[in-house]
Amino acid sequence: MTSLDPARVISDLKELRQLTGDQDGSQRIAFTTLWSTARSWLKAKCDEIPIENHLDAAGNFWATLKGESQRELLIGGHIDSVPNGGWLDGCLNLLAGLEILRRIHHQYKGKPPITIRLVDWADEEGARFGKSLFGSSACAGTLDMNEARVLKDKDGIELPAALRAVGIDFEKVKDSGVELKHAAAYLELHIEQGPVLLDKGLALGAVLGTFGVERHAITFYGQAAHSGSTPMNRRRDAFLAAARMSSEIYEIAQRYGGVCTIGSCKTKPGIVTSVVEECRITLDQRHLDPSGLAAMFADAKTASERFAHDCKVTVLWERLWQIDPILFDAQLMDWCEESIQETCGKCMRLPSGPLHDAAEVSLAGIPTSMMFVQSLHGISHNKIEDTKEEHIELSVVALDRLADKAMRWIASIK
Amino acid sequence: MTSLDPARVISDLKELRQLTGDQDGSQRIAFTTLWSTARSWLKAKCDEIPIENHLDAAGNFWATLKGESQRELLIGGHIDSVPNGGWLDGCLNLLAGLEILRRIHHQYKGKPPITIRLVDWADEEGARFGKSLFGSSACAGTLDMNEARVLKDKDGIELPAALRAVGIDFEKVKDSGVELKHAAAYLELHIEQGPVLLDKGLALGAVLGTFGVERHAITFYGQAAHSGSTPMNRRRDAFLAAARMSSEIYEIAQRYGGVCTIGSCKTKPGIVTSVVEECRITLDQRHLDPSGLAAMFADAKTASERFAHDCKVTVLWERLWQIDPILFDAQLMDWCEESIQETCGKCMRLPSGPLHDAAEVSLAGIPTSMMFVQSLHGISHNKIEDTKEEHIELSVVALDRLADKAMRWIASIK
Repeated sequence: MTSLDPARVISDLKELRQLTGDQDGSQRIAFTTLWSTARSWLKAKCDEIPIENHLDAAGNFWATLKGESQRELLIGGHIDSVPNGGWLDGCLNLLAGLEILRRIHHQYKGKPPITIRLVDWADEEGARFGKSLFGSSACAGTLDMNEARVLKDKDGIELPAALRAVGIDFEKVKDSGVELKHAAAYLELHIEQGPVLLDKGLALGAVLGTFGVERHAITFYGQAAHSGSTPMNRRRDAFLAAARMSSEIYEIAQRYGGVCTIGSCKTKPGIVTSVVEECRITLDQRHLDPSGLAAMFADAKTASERFAHDCKVTVLWERLWQIDPILFDAQLMDWCEESIQETCGKCMRLPSGPLHDAAEVSLAGIPTSMMFVQSLHGISHNKIEDTKEEHIELSVVALDRLADKAMRWIASIK
Repeated sequence: MTSLDPARVISDLKELRQLTGDQDGSQRIAFTTLWSTARSWLKAKCDEIPIENHLDAAGNFWATLKGESQRELLIGGHIDSVPNGGWLDGCLNLLAGLEILRRIHHQYKGKPPITIRLVDWADEEGARFGKSLFGSSACAGTLDMNEARVLKDKDGIELPAALRAVGIDFEKVKDSGVELKHAAAYLELHIEQGPVLLDKGLALGAVLGTFGVERHAITFYGQAAHSGSTPMNRRRDAFLAAARMSSEIYEIAQRYGGVCTIGSCKTKPGIVTSVVEECRITLDQRHLDPSGLAAMFADAKTASERFAHDCKVTVLWERLWQIDPILFDAQLMDWCEESIQETCGKCMRLPSGPLHDAAEVSLAGIPTSMMFVQSLHGISHNKIEDTKEEHIELSVVALDRLADKAMRWIASIK
């Protein structure tokens, strides 16, 4: 008989929303006052159990229920949100994890067979400095220090200065890696940030891994010319070439089964009376398979060169960011699927388009598993983000079952 | 035997370039110090003849050679330039006109049969306040006072305040209309701002009139969605719809023989990780025939609605500006062509894509004629703007012939 109370997760989530949201949504942007408020609230919840908790060198919050073995099962999430964010992204994970900690604490009278830890990663969203997964990448050791050191927010404040203001020494953030020393497995529940489960009518899904990403800026260079005096056949129109990429990426995505997005288009001189001289678009391509990703990138490049030639302009590609696909642990994946089946009878496996802290933990070599719960509108990073309460409860139950399976497995390791 | 010296126009132009240009081109932006310097230089040149000159209520500069009749032949141009502008746009007209004044003054010993006037229109380019043809539209009476009163430059300074600083009372600018009381004809020479004469291998052309313009902002409204988690078939991508307009306007322009330009594209939220929610493009359409212009506009609107429907987005059109085509005087056009034929044996009639002060004078009901001289690169509003010196000389000769024909006609009017 378990003391797990999924309804308590919902009331905790509502309490947090009341405390740190407004009419535009959640406002727990990392390293701000409301974020600190949310963390104090979380710490108080952990103190109620009671269990040890502390901040690590990167500002990640850890709450630890010591067990018979020092081997650890980690359950993670992030309390930070984007500006005007949803009420579930990041904190559903945390508060479901907290409830599981309560259940295990109660069931094992404060001394489970292995150590169970809840982690609230610092600045998953990267809303202020444009660098997501800050805390988890520092902890996993993958953070590029030289790149991160010079990141600036929109007011020109550098990341190291912002960290100093909340008591974190930027140069020491990777010391947080020590927290993973005894980690044996990592679990993360998350609201799906798309409509796949919604379209399939499923409450829960087991996540295969995170898409690899190729992110580029593509700039076409033509010739500014007067809109009234330049015959159409004499134009070298950079917008004409860039615009052709728009339909093309839909064909490329379909050809290989990935996703491609042009998110930004900027024109120079950008005035109503001139042919566009310079047009810069951004292209974000994602695929779960490295060869699919490479093929999508190659096709987009070839197409851009063809369009540039056709429009008598030139084209330049500049890589903004790249990450390989990350596949989650196969054994945990089976148990994740099993847990979902036991909870609601139906499951699907699906990739994650967005990255998550789980990807960083997986890169650190720790067996990792993620579970998605259906998003009602398929929308995230928006105040309308929502999930049916019955689905939230199912997700807590399924994650708890997965935690139980993982705990038994870790305890059995010789 | 005439005393016309076309080479002197070239040396005057070079003198002006030396005085008011730099390595980036001409810098005679209206209402700035360099513009005033250029005007003082022009006044000194007029004083050499010598003839009366003054500024009117809108800041236009008039130099008047009084004749036997008070009926006037006007020759106009503008000494203001865009930032980093060419050395010919606007001042070739003026300095050719000045040379013709010298010739007539010399030939008729200071008393020609009719009155001949040179006008330097104030702020033709509209580089600072985004409103071109300021001085000529004030004089012609077409200036929209309510619209102009609130124009601001990029520093937030309003047009009336900028005018006050150079001694012009904004509320009285239309009093300048009195200058046109005795005007019988208006002539303007201009460097072609496109490559039509260049492509035909012609030095000079007679201008049929100025294109009518339909200028709109077109905004497509879709749905922001995460680039990684939103399947391609679930997207409502505003950029996809807007981009389709790009090829379409080339087909529309070809269908009706006009020109269409998308000069600006802006995306919201405009970030690499989101499908575009809102995409705003500007469309500038021009045609010499009102029905052609109307058809181009209608076809673009229909196409935009089709693309919006196909991409599951909505579209909104907003008119930024509109002007009807303006056809120049048929009789003067014949003489313009005749003058060019006599000067260099070959002529073509062509429309003007850009507007010119001549269009405003024509709207005021004064018989108007324009002549174009070949542009070497088909480029204007750029320091590389250029014309062969032999073509400049031919243009001065041809304009002088046209002035002579116009003068004889005006003198003959009963």
